[in-house]
Amino acid sequence: MLTGEQYKQSLLDGRNVYFEGRRVENQAEEPAHVAPLEAVAAGYDKYYSADEDAVNPMLTAPRSPEELRDRIPSLMELDLALNVTYQSLMTLIVARNRLTVDSGEFGQRITNYVAQAHRRDIRVVECITDAKGNRSLAPSAQDDPDAYVRVVDRTPEGVVIRGAKLHISAASLAHDMLVMPTKRMKPGEEQYSIACAVPVNAPGVKIVNTTFDPAHRERRDYPISSRLSMPDSFVILEDVFVPHERVFLDGQADQAAVFAHSLGLWERLGGTSFMVQQADELVGLAVLIAEANGLQKVAHVREKIDEMMIHATTLRAGLEAALLHAHATSDGYYYPDELYTNATKYQGATRFNEMVRHLHDIAGGSVLTAPSMADFDNPETGKAVEKYMSTSSSISGEYRARLFHAIRDLTADAFGGWHAVTNLQSGGGLYAQRLVTRKHYDVARAKAYAMDVAGISEADR
Amino acid sequence: MLTGEQYKQSLLDGRNVYFEGRRVENQAEEPAHVAPLEAVAAGYDKYYSADEDAVNPMLTAPRSPEELRDRIPSLMELDLALNVTYQSLMTLIVARNRLTVDSGEFGQRITNYVAQAHRRDIRVVECITDAKGNRSLAPSAQDDPDAYVRVVDRTPEGVVIRGAKLHISAASLAHDMLVMPTKRMKPGEEQYSIACAVPVNAPGVKIVNTTFDPAHRERRDYPISSRLSMPDSFVILEDVFVPHERVFLDGQADQAAVFAHSLGLWERLGGTSFMVQQADELVGLAVLIAEANGLQKVAHVREKIDEMMIHATTLRAGLEAALLHAHATSDGYYYPDELYTNATKYQGATRFNEMVRHLHDIAGGSVLTAPSMADFDNPETGKAVEKYMSTSSSISGEYRARLFHAIRDLTADAFGGWHAVTNLQSGGGLYAQRLVTRKHYDVARAKAYAMDVAGISEADR
Amino acid sequence: MLTGEQYKQSLLDGRNVYFEGRRVENQAEEPAHVAPLEAVAAGYDKYYSADEDAVNPMLTAPRSPEELRDRIPSLMELDLALNVTYQSLMTLIVARNRLTVDSGEFGQRITNYVAQAHRRDIRVVECITDAKGNRSLAPSAQDDPDAYVRVVDRTPEGVVIRGAKLHISAASLAHDMLVMPTKRMKPGEEQYSIACAVPVNAPGVKIVNTTFDPAHRERRDYPISSRLSMPDSFVILEDVFVPHERVFLDGQADQAAVFAHSLGLWERLGGTSFMVQQADELVGLAVLIAEANGLQKVAHVREKIDEMMIHATTLRAGLEAALLHAHATSDGYYYPDELYTNATKYQGATRFNEMVRHLHDIAGGSVLTAPSMADFDNPETGKAVEKYMSTSSSISGEYRARLFHAIRDLTADAFGGWHAVTNLQSGGGLYAQRLVTRKHYDVARAKAYAMDVAGISEADR
Amino acid sequence: MLTGEQYKQSLLDGRNVYFEGRRVENQAEEPAHVAPLEAVAAGYDKYYSADEDAVNPMLTAPRSPEELRDRIPSLMELDLALNVTYQSLMTLIVARNRLTVDSGEFGQRITNYVAQAHRRDIRVVECITDAKGNRSLAPSAQDDPDAYVRVVDRTPEGVVIRGAKLHISAASLAHDMLVMPTKRMKPGEEQYSIACAVPVNAPGVKIVNTTFDPAHRERRDYPISSRLSMPDSFVILEDVFVPHERVFLDGQADQAAVFAHSLGLWERLGGTSFMVQQADELVGLAVLIAEANGLQKVAHVREKIDEMMIHATTLRAGLEAALLHAHATSDGYYYPDELYTNATKYQGATRFNEMVRHLHDIAGGSVLTAPSMADFDNPETGKAVEKYMSTSSSISGEYRARLFHAIRDLTADAFGGWHAVTNLQSGGGLYAQRLVTRKHYDVARAKAYAMDVAGISEADR
Repeated sequence: MLTGEQYKQSLLDGRNVYFEGRRVENQAEEPAHVAPLEAVAAGYDKYYSADEDAVNPMLTAPRSPEELRDRIPSLMELDLALNVTYQSLMTLIVARNRLTVDSGEFGQRITNYVAQAHRRDIRVVECITDAKGNRSLAPSAQDDPDAYVRVVDRTPEGVVIRGAKLHISAASLAHDMLVMPTKRMKPGEEQYSIACAVPVNAPGVKIVNTTFDPAHRERRDYPISSRLSMPDSFVILEDVFVPHERVFLDGQADQAAVFAHSLGLWERLGGTSFMVQQADELVGLAVLIAEANGLQKVAHVREKIDEMMIHATTLRAGLEAALLHAHATSDGYYYPDELYTNATKYQGATRFNEMVRHLHDIAGGSVLTAPSMADFDNPETGKAVEKYMSTSSSISGEYRARLFHAIRDLTADAFGGWHAVTNLQSGGGLYAQRLVTRKHYDVARAKAYAMDVAGISEADR
Repeated sequence: MLTGEQYKQSLLDGRNVYFEGRRVENQAEEPAHVAPLEAVAAGYDKYYSADEDAVNPMLTAPRSPEELRDRIPSLMELDLALNVTYQSLMTLIVARNRLTVDSGEFGQRITNYVAQAHRRDIRVVECITDAKGNRSLAPSAQDDPDAYVRVVDRTPEGVVIRGAKLHISAASLAHDMLVMPTKRMKPGEEQYSIACAVPVNAPGVKIVNTTFDPAHRERRDYPISSRLSMPDSFVILEDVFVPHERVFLDGQADQAAVFAHSLGLWERLGGTSFMVQQADELVGLAVLIAEANGLQKVAHVREKIDEMMIHATTLRAGLEAALLHAHATSDGYYYPDELYTNATKYQGATRFNEMVRHLHDIAGGSVLTAPSMADFDNPETGKAVEKYMSTSSSISGEYRARLFHAIRDLTADAFGGWHAVTNLQSGGGLYAQRLVTRKHYDVARAKAYAMDVAGISEADR
Repeated sequence: MLTGEQYKQSLLDGRNVYFEGRRVENQAEEPAHVAPLEAVAAGYDKYYSADEDAVNPMLTAPRSPEELRDRIPSLMELDLALNVTYQSLMTLIVARNRLTVDSGEFGQRITNYVAQAHRRDIRVVECITDAKGNRSLAPSAQDDPDAYVRVVDRTPEGVVIRGAKLHISAASLAHDMLVMPTKRMKPGEEQYSIACAVPVNAPGVKIVNTTFDPAHRERRDYPISSRLSMPDSFVILEDVFVPHERVFLDGQADQAAVFAHSLGLWERLGGTSFMVQQADELVGLAVLIAEANGLQKVAHVREKIDEMMIHATTLRAGLEAALLHAHATSDGYYYPDELYTNATKYQGATRFNEMVRHLHDIAGGSVLTAPSMADFDNPETGKAVEKYMSTSSSISGEYRARLFHAIRDLTADAFGGWHAVTNLQSGGGLYAQRLVTRKHYDVARAKAYAMDVAGISEADR
Repeated sequence: MLTGEQYKQSLLDGRNVYFEGRRVENQAEEPAHVAPLEAVAAGYDKYYSADEDAVNPMLTAPRSPEELRDRIPSLMELDLALNVTYQSLMTLIVARNRLTVDSGEFGQRITNYVAQAHRRDIRVVECITDAKGNRSLAPSAQDDPDAYVRVVDRTPEGVVIRGAKLHISAASLAHDMLVMPTKRMKPGEEQYSIACAVPVNAPGVKIVNTTFDPAHRERRDYPISSRLSMPDSFVILEDVFVPHERVFLDGQADQAAVFAHSLGLWERLGGTSFMVQQADELVGLAVLIAEANGLQKVAHVREKIDEMMIHATTLRAGLEAALLHAHATSDGYYYPDELYTNATKYQGATRFNEMVRHLHDIAGGSVLTAPSMADFDNPETGKAVEKYMSTSSSISGEYRARLFHAIRDLTADAFGGWHAVTNLQSGGGLYAQRLVTRKHYDVARAKAYAMDVAGISEADR
């Protein structure tokens, strides 16, 4: 296994990382990338064992509903790179069993790959979303045939791929990228039916980063995003060679969706758990700022907090039901129920903005205009901002300002915008969650109830 | 135990029942009351046993979370009079253990009462809501001191009570009424702190009924309400004498809320279960009518049905979570978690009207204007209405008309209005559900999450 | 002109009217039809003039924006039969100018028809909605070719039509029906491109009525629907002969939508005005019942009323804007702006159910269980229901009960369901209002704003 | 009048401006302040006249409803400092007429002040919101008596004030601050009843700024906020001396609200106009990005855009109605109707987040992860990001990326958060808008409608 320090060294491998028009030689020296780099390194140190055969214990999948449930708290504390590594490896394990064509060879490659990933203690990110071009046209009908990642050449040793993968969290901080098709392909789209593992530093790979990291700002004014930022990557694959042993699907159009579906199983638990905790966090912030403002007994403030509590409880119920009705894969790994998870994600995503509005309504304009923590330090302004941000002898100005900064950072600044969009888009947008609900909802039961209450029998039809 | 026929005879006991300005001598002869009377009688026949010691098996409380869950399907099939009898007797059993004052005597009376209720196989309704007068004034501050039921006289043998109880479902079809205070009372409101069992035919009792029963209309056009109607009663207590052995609380103001709270535990499971099933019924009707209209593949119709499915799934998750986190009373009876139940009821009640709107939007104007089933029978019109209500060779006009009647009956006619108001008002209105949520939600956890994400420790405060 | 009595006599013309499976020989003797019959008759008496050349003054169209605005109050007071007669005749006048094919002959027929309708002082209802069959198929692709009204035969004197028209308010109380295509037709659908005026008593016409009239119930418990009920008709056209002089379109598929679009112009003003007034009525009822319950100062009640006020103000603003931006037809008649009207209808329809929920939440369960006014008359119950429905010495029980009956009748009973569905469905459902908005919204301006704020010029594109 | 350059020089007057813990000697050298400084300077140049008697033509109030309406487009183009100067001076003019106590002296001072402000061509910001302390306590009951600005001393020449004013846009870029009480004061709160004009560079004034300006980031990635940023100030008044001629209220508690109410009249038009335009901008961005993504014909995307159009139309209708029902002050200046304005602001604020959600749902994850415009410039990445951000031969990658940056900047980054909070909080939060609606809504008319529809006369009550 690697220590945090060894991990940091391992990234100096010639990779092509870009940010705001510049090439980033060393992410440790790029202000907007330092915090996430350190967070991933800390994750290495946390699970490090000097034992030669040691493997990170978080990289195993739950074997029972109880284990699935017990895993949640630790899941909430993983750094994002470790979290997606877990999802990537689990995706491979499940996909291995689901592939119906040629599975012998691909299966063995997957087994080998997972074993060496464990052994090398690397971080692996999942790359799904393609550039996509015109959304209403199929891959093969695009003006640019590279709008979806595809095989453009072959050699005796492997394949050459071209295209781009978007919205890839933590790619520049990982070692490998698990490239997989974004969706089911049709006959004639064999070149797009490619899944493989690509080293981040492979020739032809370029990573263009964006981030909500508050670099160049007073970090205490961004108490959350300064800890939790993580670059999102636009991954460019310019005729990248992938050797056969790293290719897990190649040309089986009807199997193209297997990887994305397998990933979905593992992605969901984290996503829903996070939403549940986030809803509680918003309640907590609303209660704390109401108290700090002296508003905690005002009727309309209480009603808004009530609604936030009911919302948070509704999401938690969805998670509970999804865990209670957990399902097992054919090889005995447990994942939460898809109907409950998707319905919960839909509720969480559609009502997130409304809950944020309640929080803003309770907190007031100082969400935007609370002075910087640096103004508290400044002897010319410190006493005055402390005096006027305080609302009583028991609520200090600094404490209240920190609450405002936390609220702004979480909900009304770059990270807030990131949350709003990510809540909607993760797992494919609201429409995708509807499709999954439609697929898993027991419509036969509902129709039977309806016929029954209407007093109509099948024969009447 | 009683047969249905014996039950019907037992109601001819001199009770004073009124409907639309008339005294109803025999409910079996009042068109708007026949259906519910027969439904209760059928409930008697269903559980009848000739065994001398037999007791209705549905009148026992669950002893484990599993039993609580398994009870749901049968609960959904009980007639309302049996359902409320169950709730009334369970309320007494729990309240017996919770009464801290004078509980010996009251406790024994309760034990005796429950035993004879079982033995006599009677139906007992719960009477909570008082007339209340001006809602913003306490019982003792009302212009009319009788706005809340109270003790107005005493004799060596018992007490004399006066007042009214409102919204009492099935009172005229039961034998006893379990009268209890609507809320906590304050010192000085001892006269209002009265709980007791009053026979429906006791001198001074008058029952004024209202109903959504579709009497005088073609019953097939009301396929649901013609089966499920149940009169709601306005119960007048004009100086009614109650002997001591039927008095379970008398003057202990601080204990006044014990009965209502005990009732709440039992009321909830049925209420939430019903909401879950109702949500599925609405989905089912939406799917059936969309198919019958040829609209099942139209995008905006599918989206509306998706939202209905997500709503139904959300409610079901709430029920699942409430059952999973069931609690036990001190004497070992299980009831569902109050936080999850109330949050679920709130969601169900606030969004019911929106789901109905989706159904109406999909169904179209024939919800209102579908010809009567009698017009299908009429040889002068039958062929034509069949022809024009049919939408294809596989969807008969009669089948589609019956769907429309079911939708109108359930959602856009008297029974629909009854549902809309009852969903909101049962258990005390939206505001009451907020209060319960506020009480049970783990606000300390939420505040801890918020402090944690904001990076603020208690010391910083 | 006709007096009310002459009008009533005029309906005894052999027409075939059916209700709940029976033929109705004389609507004056059918309990559920008496009130609307009398309301139409009262409309005759109100505008009656013995002058031989007199014409009903309400049957003229506004010639200026001011006249359009001033017409609103009187429009709100017209009986429905007169209102739709106005709309039908205006539709013909506008359509006359818009018909591009063969307009000479059709135009002259229309002119003659309108003149004699004025002279004979008849009531004319508009018949648009066809049976429609499978909604996702065109008229010519239906299993039953009669799913849309069509010409099935021709004679030298006229045409023979077959089909059905649905949701026709007041048909059985009118003299003529203005039959018109429901939508644009395509080449090959010439037989469906038929517009004409059909006497209600023409051979082959059958009218099957439904109604929310509270016949057989205590009318005082239905204070609104007992005054405002109006039967909706399912009109069957069984090979009805129509002479040429009453045919206004015959086979011009590309002109088929002219009549429906012309009707739309006139239909909207009344519909939107009604919604605005209805929203204010709901506010008024909420305020009155809050006061009667003693809740007018409770915070959550005030907030609900605030939202109802804001909703009502928003709808009124929509009406104001629609009138301010009134447009003129080519012959100088003014109608309100379609963008504002449709956006307003959409808002009114989508949020109606929510406003009703607020009203129900404030009012409480007595919306359902307030005793009948007849119970107030009954000496055995009158004093008690008065006593317990009263909430203070200044709010009588009878007054409060009447409020509850009004609320139930308007929002939680048959008429309430009729409103909920009609608000949605009139003018074609929510989807239709979206389409009209999409058509009239100034999307070019919005795109220009967006480009401008984004700092992008057309050249950058 | 001043040129832009003279204006910039005028700010180098010794003022105490702070930002992120540092004192800002020259705002022209502070990256986060340059853009707003230049924008205000450009406003000077735009209206500059060398004529000695010239006065900025934008600083006059509308004298007719038509002028009020015609002013809107130019209002939308004013820089913020000029806009608030206009509001400040109008506030003084109206307040002058409304002051009932001592108005002679205060009136003359106001007249003089406005005249010299015109002559000197200064910028004047309005300072309302106090620090406020505990929101549920009155000014005189706070732990810190300075929680509201107050007079702490007097000299023969003037008064000395202490306190803080929050959320003051553009204070550091203006010359004077119009300090006024935040609300009505009560007897005993005379010291808080102070209105006056304070120079920004007066001894004891300190300005602590916050801003959403994207300093230190690639400005093209922030196409909107880089142009429109404006610092918000936390204004500290540390025993600031104000000479009598600049004091406009001093100790008249019952008059304390006059200034804030006068300001409200002028503030509203701009606020509502802005909301209307913003709603159209969001529609425009949604349409453009849908087209750029190839989604413009997808049903669920069209439905979301429909709802955005309906929302924008509803807000526009509110503005139209507010202008149509404009009112005049006693001295003949026109301002929009308060009922319509507040209802519109409430609708705009409560639904803003939902409209943003629709936009995000349509746009997709590239709102967050579109590469920087600098990455387009970089020869190592430029071709690839252009290739993969393009969606067809007619939609260039750069154009689409700029749309994403505009959407992120406007709705999902610091400026987006600023909008979300400001929409809610400007004019006092949602609750304040409810209170104004409650005050101006014609509840008597609504009650009359309700009584009328219920068939109840006043006598029945």
